[in-house]
Amino acid sequence: MKTIKALVFDVFGTVVDWRGSIIREVQAAWPQVDAPAFADAWRAGYVPAMDRARRGEIAWTHIDGLHRVILDEIRPRFGLADLREAEIDHLNRVWHRLDPWPDAVSGLQRLKAKHVIATLSNGNVALLVDMAKHAGLPWDCVLSAELFQHYKPDPEVYQGAARLLGVARDELLMVAAHPGDLVAAQRAGLRTAYVPRPLERGEGGTLEPVGDAVFDLTAADFNALAAQLGA
Amino acid sequence: MKTIKALVFDVFGTVVDWRGSIIREVQAAWPQVDAPAFADAWRAGYVPAMDRARRGEIAWTHIDGLHRVILDEIRPRFGLADLREAEIDHLNRVWHRLDPWPDAVSGLQRLKAKHVIATLSNGNVALLVDMAKHAGLPWDCVLSAELFQHYKPDPEVYQGAARLLGVARDELLMVAAHPGDLVAAQRAGLRTAYVPRPLERGEGGTLEPVGDAVFDLTAADFNALAAQLGA
Repeated sequence: MKTIKALVFDVFGTVVDWRGSIIREVQAAWPQVDAPAFADAWRAGYVPAMDRARRGEIAWTHIDGLHRVILDEIRPRFGLADLREAEIDHLNRVWHRLDPWPDAVSGLQRLKAKHVIATLSNGNVALLVDMAKHAGLPWDCVLSAELFQHYKPDPEVYQGAARLLGVARDELLMVAAHPGDLVAAQRAGLRTAYVPRPLERGEGGTLEPVGDAVFDLTAADFNALAAQLGA
Repeated sequence: MKTIKALVFDVFGTVVDWRGSIIREVQAAWPQVDAPAFADAWRAGYVPAMDRARRGEIAWTHIDGLHRVILDEIRPRFGLADLREAEIDHLNRVWHRLDPWPDAVSGLQRLKAKHVIATLSNGNVALLVDMAKHAGLPWDCVLSAELFQHYKPDPEVYQGAARLLGVARDELLMVAAHPGDLVAAQRAGLRTAYVPRPLERGEGGTLEPVGDAVFDLTAADFNALAAQLGA
């Protein structure tokens, strides 16, 4: 791995615990809501919504906009039909306030000392910037699908990241908890590091299967990844 | 200024001392070269080159590419015709290694504690990321003309920054040492802070005239700006 010049990170699930963060915030505000089911329903709408944008069935919409459409769809089922607009908007921005996995900040700080570290997320720039301030994520650069008007796993996102960072594709390491993201990065010419997050879907939740995919690195967390990269 | 949500900064001359940095590096490597004249000649080619791109006379080229074209034009006049390719490339990247003004890092740290702070530079993303690591500039986000395929002072750059940061244009404060940059930001709907850098062109160098422009804030340096913003 001597030629790695920069690392790009998937964010939702890889860096931050979206499910636990949403559950905590919803439970605190509305104790009567089934918060785990609510978080899962919200997230379940995410890939289909992006896929509609990827196929061109809807105009380009950033994640804040997609999250809001899904939220308005599911609110009535969870007893949240009657929120005021300011409450809905605040809830929609819970994605800007997600908490990091326990190793994320210390691991990123180690990695940053040796490499360029950047996001490469389907989250929009404003969301990622707010989240970094909330969670103390020390990014050198915030890269987003929004900059390319393509969502992962479209190759334009991975290739665009290498172009903007001024590195060859095989000098760029994609770090993610999701094999599908990594396989798409690999097809686009990037190197890959798999960091599974067994608690992403909660205790006893299922992980996306790795299948016959083979990655350059596999690490238990970001500190282990830093150690493997000599950082 | 209660409504300011984010600050974007011009970089060359406003945050970093491009002229002094280039002079120091050239003097160290080639003592026989007239380093101040070399730095001025290199910079003098910059606006005309960008303007050719802005008028569509040449295809979009990032600043590293424009700097290289200008460098190759002026090298022979300064006794640098016979450099090896690796030396030329390294010299061209001196713009990635510029040193900050003495107040820049501490002022940005203060401002960052209260606001989102981002670059808004004609420099390309890779250049700005390298420079931030070199100089310790604590950006929340690296925004560049490259993301919009428009150079300042085109309005697309200022308006695009507000869009990506998720703020209204009049919630975004443009900070620059150059009145022309600020006037263009103002026309695009942004608020403005003028931070003159009397030494940008060296001792006794001339400043770009302010004319009849009026800015929201004027500050002697970034710490003074932080104080004015209550940061």
